[in-house]
Amino acid sequence: MTRIALLGCGRIGKMHAATIARAEGAALAAVYDPVTAAAGEIGRRYGCPVAASAEEAIALADAVLIATSTATHADLIEAAARAGKAIFCEKPIDLSLARVVACRKAIAGFDRPVQIGFNRRYDPGHRAARDAVRAGEIGDLRQVIITSRDPGLAARDYLKVSGGIFRDMTIHDFDLARFMLGEEPAEVFATGSTLVDPTLAEFGDVDSTMIILRTASGKLCHINNSRAAAYGYDQRVELFGAKGMLISGNRRAHQVERFTAAATGAGEPYLDFFIERYVEAFEIGLKSFLRCVAANATPDVTFDDGEKALVLAEAAIRSKAEGRFVRVDEITG
Amino acid sequence: MTRIALLGCGRIGKMHAATIARAEGAALAAVYDPVTAAAGEIGRRYGCPVAASAEEAIALADAVLIATSTATHADLIEAAARAGKAIFCEKPIDLSLARVVACRKAIAGFDRPVQIGFNRRYDPGHRAARDAVRAGEIGDLRQVIITSRDPGLAARDYLKVSGGIFRDMTIHDFDLARFMLGEEPAEVFATGSTLVDPTLAEFGDVDSTMIILRTASGKLCHINNSRAAAYGYDQRVELFGAKGMLISGNRRAHQVERFTAAATGAGEPYLDFFIERYVEAFEIGLKSFLRCVAANATPDVTFDDGEKALVLAEAAIRSKAEGRFVRVDEITG
Amino acid sequence: MTRIALLGCGRIGKMHAATIARAEGAALAAVYDPVTAAAGEIGRRYGCPVAASAEEAIALADAVLIATSTATHADLIEAAARAGKAIFCEKPIDLSLARVVACRKAIAGFDRPVQIGFNRRYDPGHRAARDAVRAGEIGDLRQVIITSRDPGLAARDYLKVSGGIFRDMTIHDFDLARFMLGEEPAEVFATGSTLVDPTLAEFGDVDSTMIILRTASGKLCHINNSRAAAYGYDQRVELFGAKGMLISGNRRAHQVERFTAAATGAGEPYLDFFIERYVEAFEIGLKSFLRCVAANATPDVTFDDGEKALVLAEAAIRSKAEGRFVRVDEITG
Amino acid sequence: MTRIALLGCGRIGKMHAATIARAEGAALAAVYDPVTAAAGEIGRRYGCPVAASAEEAIALADAVLIATSTATHADLIEAAARAGKAIFCEKPIDLSLARVVACRKAIAGFDRPVQIGFNRRYDPGHRAARDAVRAGEIGDLRQVIITSRDPGLAARDYLKVSGGIFRDMTIHDFDLARFMLGEEPAEVFATGSTLVDPTLAEFGDVDSTMIILRTASGKLCHINNSRAAAYGYDQRVELFGAKGMLISGNRRAHQVERFTAAATGAGEPYLDFFIERYVEAFEIGLKSFLRCVAANATPDVTFDDGEKALVLAEAAIRSKAEGRFVRVDEITG
Repeated sequence: MTRIALLGCGRIGKMHAATIARAEGAALAAVYDPVTAAAGEIGRRYGCPVAASAEEAIALADAVLIATSTATHADLIEAAARAGKAIFCEKPIDLSLARVVACRKAIAGFDRPVQIGFNRRYDPGHRAARDAVRAGEIGDLRQVIITSRDPGLAARDYLKVSGGIFRDMTIHDFDLARFMLGEEPAEVFATGSTLVDPTLAEFGDVDSTMIILRTASGKLCHINNSRAAAYGYDQRVELFGAKGMLISGNRRAHQVERFTAAATGAGEPYLDFFIERYVEAFEIGLKSFLRCVAANATPDVTFDDGEKALVLAEAAIRSKAEGRFVRVDEITG
Repeated sequence: MTRIALLGCGRIGKMHAATIARAEGAALAAVYDPVTAAAGEIGRRYGCPVAASAEEAIALADAVLIATSTATHADLIEAAARAGKAIFCEKPIDLSLARVVACRKAIAGFDRPVQIGFNRRYDPGHRAARDAVRAGEIGDLRQVIITSRDPGLAARDYLKVSGGIFRDMTIHDFDLARFMLGEEPAEVFATGSTLVDPTLAEFGDVDSTMIILRTASGKLCHINNSRAAAYGYDQRVELFGAKGMLISGNRRAHQVERFTAAATGAGEPYLDFFIERYVEAFEIGLKSFLRCVAANATPDVTFDDGEKALVLAEAAIRSKAEGRFVRVDEITG
Repeated sequence: MTRIALLGCGRIGKMHAATIARAEGAALAAVYDPVTAAAGEIGRRYGCPVAASAEEAIALADAVLIATSTATHADLIEAAARAGKAIFCEKPIDLSLARVVACRKAIAGFDRPVQIGFNRRYDPGHRAARDAVRAGEIGDLRQVIITSRDPGLAARDYLKVSGGIFRDMTIHDFDLARFMLGEEPAEVFATGSTLVDPTLAEFGDVDSTMIILRTASGKLCHINNSRAAAYGYDQRVELFGAKGMLISGNRRAHQVERFTAAATGAGEPYLDFFIERYVEAFEIGLKSFLRCVAANATPDVTFDDGEKALVLAEAAIRSKAEGRFVRVDEITG
Repeated sequence: MTRIALLGCGRIGKMHAATIARAEGAALAAVYDPVTAAAGEIGRRYGCPVAASAEEAIALADAVLIATSTATHADLIEAAARAGKAIFCEKPIDLSLARVVACRKAIAGFDRPVQIGFNRRYDPGHRAARDAVRAGEIGDLRQVIITSRDPGLAARDYLKVSGGIFRDMTIHDFDLARFMLGEEPAEVFATGSTLVDPTLAEFGDVDSTMIILRTASGKLCHINNSRAAAYGYDQRVELFGAKGMLISGNRRAHQVERFTAAATGAGEPYLDFFIERYVEAFEIGLKSFLRCVAANATPDVTFDDGEKALVLAEAAIRSKAEGRFVRVDEITG
């Protein structure tokens, strides 16, 4: 039984609490949130102590799940590492690459599992597609196309402090690109526009992006993002290789199709939003973490993966600013 | 070059004229229709003589395409056979099984090709599905499900003299069932209702039917019909066997799918009506006939097939009237 | 909190135990199974008492979930009713219509909820389709087509005592037909064959069936069954009405499609078997039962629904034997 | 009746000859090809004169269809214009932008229709998608994604003189991007790799490309190309807007889907190659040209469109060479 301290009891924290409660071999050891009402609600619901501080929660547990606001992630990783507890940290590690590098150095030598919450790697569809590529089903991989569009614009207050679309949203796609390519991107081109909400330009952000990654061996990857999609959460991955193509598609709540004088084969809008779309991925990801904790093994998604995705985001930011193909090795923490 | 006399210049006659005009190795030798304006229009368009009688048209040709009203088919088959000309006759041969039997006897010994216009056998999808079954792709065939729904009710005047839904509409599905099953149906159950237009009951017809056929070896086949379908012409064939299933589906004018807040993956309504849906089938069927004429070979769809489909229609009529599983061998001309 | 006694700890009992454990507002009060090892395993896993008899388990609970072998269902329903406990009973109530009628009479006046386990009514897709029909989305319903094929033949020992395909397998489809039609079937035609395993004929059963139901107003319903389908558990419902059609389709484990030189758009085989395919339905059905227990309300699927589905099965058996359209009112307990 | 001189009797010339022969209101006036056997074959087949020179063919006709090798297009456009004949010219006008500009100047003031053979604009699916966007169905257009992959690598001898992938293959996609965007691309980024055949690097070409276009208003467009796709000719256009998305998908020879223990919903490989995939587009494009000739109207795809697509190709070439976002207005003939 792995006893987990949950730090952060917002939307994603609640979801993790439910996942932990359902998982065999796991239990909530304690919850903590600076908003005590939020922590109290989860504590009551699952019958676990509400800690007065993150440190207190960490002390009560075997492992720590960090789902607090981004700015606190690196500090809490360091605190959990000091306490010798296995760590599951929501993405991103930090918005500052320098802080991530410092965190990495601070926990150097820490020998317990550290897993970063890039949940999409655990989606059964995305995973099956990746496995098929690794198994040689489509021959040498040549192109990856990732379409990633949120159903609707997040709150302006959130967006202002999000670090910008590349660090906040595309970072998932950068991780997925690395996962699928099986080779590090060497060059990044990125551009973007404010097509959903022009006022995002006030704080230098965009809501629509297109990106191209190229690996050393020449593999090509395209990512497109939008902060809004009328038809639901759009999460597609296309893998194109010498012998074929795999597409991991969207999910609907059920498989009803409608046929009328206006249209045929019409299905439901796509599952909205990530907690619904990736419900299995969150569960499988947690189970994978629990297995790593039990065996003291290296997770599928490491601190290093968290850092590398952020490096790609930094490269994208520079590319967009300078209008050129940026080499990833130009980016240093 | 096969010179063809076209008898009957209505909707389906016009379509055949265009198909003949496009086909290599075929030409219109003459056209005839009791409505001289209709014949004249086709004659002018394709630059061929308008005959004063069916006999005159037949005399000018190597082969005869009979697309006149049903009541005249058997007489014209006999006339063409007497003249020694190859025959392509639209379905059904006649609404009366006795007349069909008499016609068969009348042309006994005729040694030129006689093809009946069961166009669906030539549809590329249906044909590919049948070929896959024959090739063993789904193992032993166990069930066939044919969905066949017209886009909208035909004119009441037509329906009154149509011979009823089993002889007029289901007859295509009976032929397709035989084509797909690869074994003769031995028993027939049929029922029906007036759900589209209750006034059809005034002349004893129904607009919605469900049928079950069973072969001697136990293969099962379901057919459902409706005289109206809001979403277009619905023509599906499902073949279910020991190792898998094949579905030959509907066709749309193009492959655009729409994704909105209301629906995802919505395509166009289905192609409406049979001339559009089965455009390739009509063309391939005519080419097949031309090859048979050239080689004096037996067509894929013979007079015998026309008679057997009508026998199944008669069995369905009796089954519906008597509420029981009717043995096909109870039906005699 | 509703405390539930689980009677029967086989495959479906285990599934119900997990569902109860996950459900808010429910807990396992006790488990019982004549195979004590099976009961013990569930008791240990969920930390609940293992009762020495069904009666003892019933006494410990607010509600009883009957998942024992079919022959015991009616007795246990009566025992639970005598004890005044709400009842959730797996289908079928009994293989004998006479026993079902006797059970109904025995519990006449019992005023706690009795729900029969026709899980498919709770499937999100089937339910959404039914709701759309009720909302008038496709106009007047005209035809229902239910395709229901198991992935593989059950064990011969099970089949021998199953009561035959109509009572054991089709009974789900009869219930679904009633649910979808919104009107009682008035006539039944059924036929069948042994196409999967000819030796089933030794005990008078078939493995492949086709059925037609007709309501008083003329609505038509086709059901086809097979005890084996190579491509997985095939569970489709097609609802055809004056203004359109709805199809509730099959489910795959994920949405990956493969494109190769051999095929395009190829997905996974369908989810196999009912516990996987209908996982949500079992959960929603239990939640619905819990709400009824809390409010002492009438469930969506009543004892009466269990009896009516069995009446249709009896009508199908008679129809197949006599080769005729059987009126449902010919069947009496 | 428009009498057309066909210049060039290779693969695409043959296809045009057949289209002209089928079209109402058009006839082949003469054919010419430096390979006299090729011209002779078409002449015999359609019963039209074989001219000894392009000039002679032009003189016999009302309109000229130029399907010769690319290097001769501009000269023949000028010759046809001098002769006062309407012009349909296959893409590209020339591989040299300077030559295209010179040709434009040479025919300045010519007042007969000049249509460039960007056939994809006439594809029923692509056209319906574009029309839906124009009709406001998906609100403001935000992103366009064009996937364009040939089934297999063209002959090396052809590729060597093709002008490179951007001028030879992507040029179709550049035109389609302009057609769909409804606004001129202002900036171009392009990269590429030799993933299909590394030896293409010997003459400086690539076989796999990814491109991003951005318009002045911020609309984003991604194009990906591959010279080979195992599953057939892959031609998809995705249009993403404020209110929804449209996808114009691939086409199969028929609509059969296969369901086995290995896969469900598997269709045929896609239609291969452009003559099959775009058969309707070629026909509709020719009909549109014939209407323009008859009415002396401006075609949908003008000389200017041919030039603008080439400008985008030049921008892509420069972008790939310099690794930067190239402004389209940097490119001048």
